[in-house]
Parts: sequence; C-alpha cells; structure tokens
Amino acid sequence: MSYNKTASITAETINPRVKTFNYEPCGEIARHAERLQEELNKNPGSRPFSEIIYCNLGNPQALGQRPITFFREVLSLCDNPALLQRDEASMLFSQCAIKRARKIIEAMPGKDSGPYTPSQGVKNLRESVADGIAGRDGYPSRPQDIFLTDGASSAVNLTMQILIRSEEDAILCPLPEYPLYSGSILLHGGTMVPYNLSEAGDWGLEIFEVKRCLEEARISGLTVRAMVVINPGNPTGQVLSVTNQEEIVEFCRKEGLVILADEVYQDNVYVEDKKFNSFKKVARSLGYNEDDISIVSYHSVSMGYYGECGRRGGYMEICGFGEDVMDEMCKVASLTLCPNIGGQILTSLVMDTPKIGDDCFEKFLAEKESIQASLVKRAKTLEKAFSSLEGVTCNRIEGAIYLFPRIHLPAAAIKAAKTEGVSPDIFYACRLLHDAGIAVVPGSGFHQISGRNRAAGTYHIRCTILPGEDKIKMMISRLKAFHESFMNEFRDRN
Amino acid sequence: MSYNKTASITAETINPRVKTFNYEPCGEIARHAERLQEELNKNPGSRPFSEIIYCNLGNPQALGQRPITFFREVLSLCDNPALLQRDEASMLFSQCAIKRARKIIEAMPGKDSGPYTPSQGVKNLRESVADGIAGRDGYPSRPQDIFLTDGASSAVNLTMQILIRSEEDAILCPLPEYPLYSGSILLHGGTMVPYNLSEAGDWGLEIFEVKRCLEEARISGLTVRAMVVINPGNPTGQVLSVTNQEEIVEFCRKEGLVILADEVYQDNVYVEDKKFNSFKKVARSLGYNEDDISIVSYHSVSMGYYGECGRRGGYMEICGFGEDVMDEMCKVASLTLCPNIGGQILTSLVMDTPKIGDDCFEKFLAEKESIQASLVKRAKTLEKAFSSLEGVTCNRIEGAIYLFPRIHLPAAAIKAAKTEGVSPDIFYACRLLHDAGIAVVPGSGFHQISGRNRAAGTYHIRCTILPGEDKIKMMISRLKAFHESFMNEFRDRN
Repeated sequence: MSYNKTASITAETINPRVKTFNYEPCGEIARHAERLQEELNKNPGSRPFSEIIYCNLGNPQALGQRPITFFREVLSLCDNPALLQRDEASMLFSQCAIKRARKIIEAMPGKDSGPYTPSQGVKNLRESVADGIAGRDGYPSRPQDIFLTDGASSAVNLTMQILIRSEEDAILCPLPEYPLYSGSILLHGGTMVPYNLSEAGDWGLEIFEVKRCLEEARISGLTVRAMVVINPGNPTGQVLSVTNQEEIVEFCRKEGLVILADEVYQDNVYVEDKKFNSFKKVARSLGYNEDDISIVSYHSVSMGYYGECGRRGGYMEICGFGEDVMDEMCKVASLTLCPNIGGQILTSLVMDTPKIGDDCFEKFLAEKESIQASLVKRAKTLEKAFSSLEGVTCNRIEGAIYLFPRIHLPAAAIKAAKTEGVSPDIFYACRLLHDAGIAVVPGSGFHQISGRNRAAGTYHIRCTILPGEDKIKMMISRLKAFHESFMNEFRDRN
Repeated sequence: MSYNKTASITAETINPRVKTFNYEPCGEIARHAERLQEELNKNPGSRPFSEIIYCNLGNPQALGQRPITFFREVLSLCDNPALLQRDEASMLFSQCAIKRARKIIEAMPGKDSGPYTPSQGVKNLRESVADGIAGRDGYPSRPQDIFLTDGASSAVNLTMQILIRSEEDAILCPLPEYPLYSGSILLHGGTMVPYNLSEAGDWGLEIFEVKRCLEEARISGLTVRAMVVINPGNPTGQVLSVTNQEEIVEFCRKEGLVILADEVYQDNVYVEDKKFNSFKKVARSLGYNEDDISIVSYHSVSMGYYGECGRRGGYMEICGFGEDVMDEMCKVASLTLCPNIGGQILTSLVMDTPKIGDDCFEKFLAEKESIQASLVKRAKTLEKAFSSLEGVTCNRIEGAIYLFPRIHLPAAAIKAAKTEGVSPDIFYACRLLHDAGIAVVPGSGFHQISGRNRAAGTYHIRCTILPGEDKIKMMISRLKAFHESFMNEFRDRN
C-alpha cells in the first residue's frame, strides 16, 4: 500500500526523539509471540506445544489472576449508581460494597461517576489515599500532595514534563531499568544517566557507584535533577534494605536530587526477612521533612494482589515541591482534563480496603491471601527451576513479579547470535519462544548492555511469575527440556 | 509553609514550556467560582444568590444530564463479569446490555476487564468503532487505523508528540481556539500559528485568511505541518458547511498539511439546515484517499448525548500516515501501556448503539432524543436571551454546547478593567460571577485577543448550554438583571 505523497509525515520526518527509545516489553518478542499464537490457532500441531506461555508482561489478570470481588463490586455499582436505589442489588452485591459505593457517589461532582473531576482527582478519593499512606507509613500524608493518575506511567510522564528543560537536564536511572523511565526521559528531551545495580550484591544499589555516575554526568556539563529508584525492583526483583534506603536518602538530600520512587510493587514482597518501606517513611524516620528532601512516590492499581492493569489507576504523592510548582503540575494535568474515574475509585479502594467488622472483610482477606500465597509459591518454584539449569544463576526473588536469571551462554551461542545480527540474550529469548513457546523479555530490553555498564557481557532474561500454578509446572518442564537441548547444541567443548 | 531548600525544583527551574500556556476553562474563574460556592455554603444569605450556576465547563453530567442507561449497564456488567453468570442479573440489567457485555468480555485478553490491552486498544472494540465510522460516513474504515485513547485530549497530545520536532514546526489553529491545542503544541515544543475565524461569517473559516497565515509563517521560517479544525466549533458553536469543508480539504491537500479534525461535537448539532460531516467523508467524496491527504479525526465519549466526561474514552482515526509512523505512534502509546478499559468499552458503545429490535432500543432512543431535544431548547432559549441584552450580539448556535456572545463593553467598563489590570472580558466575567453567581469563561481564555488577531478589541464570553432547563431559566433572570445593572453603571454617556 502506498501512503500520502503530498503530506510530509513519514518515519523520517516525525519527532526524532520518538525514535531514540524502545519499550521492549510491548516490543518485538511480544509481537512475535502474538504471531506465533495465531499460527498455532490456524495450524494446531504445527509446533510441539499448543499455546504460548506468556512470562513477558506484568499483566496478572491476563494470565488468570482473579480480581478481588470487593473492588469489582464497588466499581460496578459506581458505574451504574441507579443500582444503589434497587433492593434487588443486595442479592448481587455485598453490603459493604453497596455502602462504599454510596459514600463514593455521594462525594462525586454531580453525585454520579460521569462528570470530569478536578485534574488532580476527586478530593474525597485523594483523602482516602492520603489516609492509606499515613496508615502504612506512620507519618502524615495530605490530600493536596496527591495526584490521582491514569496509572503510574502517566504520573512518571507528567513528572518528566515538569523536570526536563533541555537535554542538559538529566535523571539518574538504574540499570537494568524498567524502560518506561528512559523512554519518558528521552521523549521529553532530557538525558538519562544510568547507574549500575550490583548483581553480586543481590541487585542492591551501591552509593559509590551512583556517586561516580553523578560526578561523571556533572563533569560532562549535565544538570542532574532527580534519581529514579525502583523498589521492589523491576526487572531485578530485589527489595532494598532500610540501610540502603537510608544511604540513598542521605545522598539525594546532600546532592539536592529529587527521589523518584517507583513503589508500585509495594504489595509484592515474598521473603520473611525483608519488608517494603516507602522512601518517604525512611526520610521521615531520619528526621527529614519536605524542606530537607523532595520525594515523589508512584503507586498504581496494576500490580500487588489487585493486578488491575487495564483500569489505569494510580497516584503520585509529591512531597517537597513548592505550591507554585504544584499549580504548574495541575495545569499540565488539566491538558488531559482528569484521570479516568474508574481508576480514581479503584486507587482509593486499594489504599482503603475493607476492615475487620465489614461484612466482606473475611472474603476480601481470603482472596488477597490466596493470591499472595500463590505468588510466593510460584516465585520460589520458578527460582528453584532456573537455578537448577546448567549455566544459569538466579538471584533470590524478594519482591515484584519478576525473575531476572543470568544465562551464561556458551561461546558458540554468542557466535551464532552474532551471525544472526542480534544480541545473545535476544537470540536465547527468541529460541525459547520459538522452540518452547515461552515468551520472556531479553535483558537488553532493560538496557542491560550499555557502554557504561560494568555488566556488559552478561546476559539475562526477565521472566514473570504470573502464569497460574499449573501453567508454571508446564512452563518449567518445557524450559528444562529447551535449555538442555540448547546447551547440547552450543555447549563449549574443551 | 516553607519548601525544599536543597533540591532545585522551583517554579523558576521547571520546564519553561510549561509556563507558556494556560488552560483557562480549568483556570482562574473556575477556582474563583469554587471559592465563592464554599463561602456560600458557610454563610448562606451572604450573597443575593444561594448557588453558582456553572456555565463555564463542558461537563454535562455535573449539571444534571442523565447518563444513557444502556451504556452504564454494559459498563457495570463488564466491571464485574461474575454478574453475567447470575440469573438475578436479569432483574437489574436489560437483556441487550447482558448480551453486549458477554460479547465484549468474550473478546478481552484473559476474558476479563482487568488486564492491560494492546496499546492501540482491544481489537474487537476498534472493529466496532471502525464499523460505526463506516456506517456514519458511507466510506470504509479499518480497525488498524483506530487508536482508542483516554479521551480526545490524550489523542491530541500523542499526535503533537509525533508531529513536533522543534519550535520551527508549527500547527495552524483557529482563533478563538479551544486552548488544549495551544497548550499541547507549546508543551511539546512547537509553534502555534493562529488563523482567525470570521465572526461576521458565522464563525466560518475563510481560506484566504488561513492562506495568509500559512504564508506569513513560512516566510518567517516555520515548517507548518498540520491544521487544526474544530467542527462543530468550540467555543464558537458553528457547524461548517460542506462547501467550506471542501475548500479546507483542497487547501490542505495542495499545501501538504495534515488535517487534525476535532470532531468531538459530532452528535451536537441543533439546526435543520446543517448536519455534521466528517472531514474524511468530505475528502472521500471529493475522490481523495489516504494517498492524497492525511486526516486525523478525534472523537470522545465526553460530549454529545452521552456526556461521559470522567470516563476518559475516545478514539482517533488516522488516515494517510505510513505503517512505520503508526508503529512509532504505538510505541509512544505504549509508554502509558494502554487506554483505560472502561473508556475503551464506552467508546465502542457510543459508535455501536442499540439497534431496532434490541429489547432496550426504545428506551435508548427515548433517552437520547430527550437529551437532544432539551439541548436544542436550551440552546435556543439562551441564544434569544443573550441577543436581547443591550450591546450584546450572539451568533446562531448551530452545534457544540457553547454560546460565544460578543459583549460591546462601554468605554467606562473598559477603563475600569484597565484600572484593575485585567482584560475587559475578564472584568465582565468576574463581575458576572461575583454579582450574579454565573460562571462563564472569558473570551481571552480562547486567545481571542492576540496581536495578529483582527478581532482585537472585541470581547466575548463562552457560556455552555448545559445547566438544566430550570437552572437556565434562573440563570437568564439573573443574567438580565446583572447586565442591566452593569450597563447602568458603565453606560457611555453622550
């Protein structure tokens, strides 16, 4: 098909910043997996497997995680408040969902879920979120510091639009990194300054390494404005220790950097010896308030036991920006009018769940604990499976929903990849998809390979723990067989 | 309260592009109205009115417009698909809503409404939208050309991110203009080239004027990439004639400009002698296809008889960009993962409404026609009221949801405004709010005053037709009394 010849919109003439980034989780492997599944649907039996097992995207409910009933009931009632006037509703909805929906609708502009809301989100819902944060941290939180957003990614984009003035403005980001950050920084015209996480140190963050990167950046003329920390980590699955977090807070305070804290996996922690602490809590416990350090915390309804990705709900809590800056952020937010109302409602529910005594509390708790227990089980099962493979080392998965095993590829495999003109981790991931029907994201999708990266020459894949327990079993058996055959094909011969 | 002293995020150090634009509909007057209402709640009787009448924001359901039952029932069921298994559901939901919800859920990733969807939106929902467009226009539409989006504003922002490379890239925009466009263009680093609509020509678009602006822009070194047309018009309420649209198509084709067609008011037309025609339909009827001219059409669920602003649903249909450009647009869209699922579903419903024979068709039609009839009635009533005021001329409201009357302000009022350091239209709007409790948006919020603007020295207000019929009656009586007293205070004495 030919396209417009007169108008000048071609891949060569669009905004060049768009072409500088990649968002690999939705990229090549995902498209390849989709095509392969379509082929399988058309020609069942054409491959040794009948369906793709998707371990590439953090999309829990696409893989069978059940939604929390209370959340869905409240959403359903708020969508159709006429139900709240009907006695029959109590046959289909719990009393506590009806009560909550009434309270929410009562506080809405126009007493319905249809109108635009303020650009920062409905005030009462922001109050629920602030109360939830205060309860979690033990330190106060104020509704005027909360922006409800269409998921955490919208919040990150809004922050970058505010922080970045030109490509001389830089943001420190971890490597490997969730590519939303590099994408958003590059799209908005800034510079990403990567710092390496330490695989040997359980993917923790070494301050001397961050300091080295900061100094190099400053010497090269960049103004470093903020530091991104993802905790629990994506793709690395680590949970930072409080000591490590304290070092980061002291460092950012001293250097005048805003902490951009990606805390979307705060309800995904799988080990007894670690727990989630927000950066704000750590800063406050060190005695620092919003005059001492600026912190933006991102959260969303997409992960945790809630897993409501498609709803696009989330918030950011901003501590330490002036009121005039907050006004400018509101103005940018008003360019998209307001966050979607379903996402706003769900965000308030996630931060203000049923309490003991509510008629739905036991059901809620049982659903939540069942999801969490299953995630722990799947995490440990997969960790063990990867660790058992020849030439694979797999750090402990402490949190988030990903394993990030390192594959020590034989020289012959690296050579074969070179022949095909792809990075060796992509070569492995493509073979894994093609031969075993398992979709993962190659480590290079998280910019694991970089000139500045001490980890150059190491190869990883990111694998979610999200397929159901039966699928995980099937996946492990396919993975083992594939890996053995792959190694047999390429194993270094001495 | 004092703020962060060490970190460098102040209004002086944020992205300067943020400070270059204003979004007045959510701006000063809106905040002022909110404060005034709070005062009234605390001290009833402190003013000659007990409540503000909001004619400033296009937010139908905040002002009492009832949602369409079918839409809300389907949303409610899709939020909580467990209901689809329950016999009792038929006591609370129509069969046709149940049937539609089943069809939608069946086509969802993971057969639920929780997961991320493709960044462009769910394929089956895009098919419904494409079918709806084809039915409306009589020309084919393809799902791969549709992006489902979080309202039209997200779509506009995405387009600007693609089109604008630097401030040498310019976009033609109407004056007066809905300030989303200037805001988005400036935020993304481009230049807005305004062209004047002709008040004398019923706010139509004169090609020689657009041509003059294009040529001036080119002489000054700008690359003009696209032309925004809002039809039906915001804030001007005009519906373009087919002849006028044909001229625009020919002009943009000849000059290689993309038409960015804001068609969100396509279901808001109030006059017998005009109807809505999409720019794509006009281009196709002239024999031009996507090889001849590029057109992006924006639509949303926020306006029309649906009025579901807070849902943030919408689409853009892109005809004439290459596949490689579409891939890059997908990549930018993937930075916010996907549009919210409720908005996607609702967009498909708006473009694929109940048909004759569906059990809910008559109710749907009655609700739709009742809203439309009332909008027509309110439009005509308000138009008549404004036209009856001393020194006010009001063009015919043909479509959209706004009147844009011109206020011929007396010299003494202009002088008083100058003394207060505000634009005369702002002076009038503030007095209208303060003295009569009526919130409108001053014309300068739509950049009505500009150095390049032939209309300099004319003053307007934008007033929605959205308050309910009883409120409109009350509003008109307040407006008449206010205007008379205002004119008595400032009337030119010869």
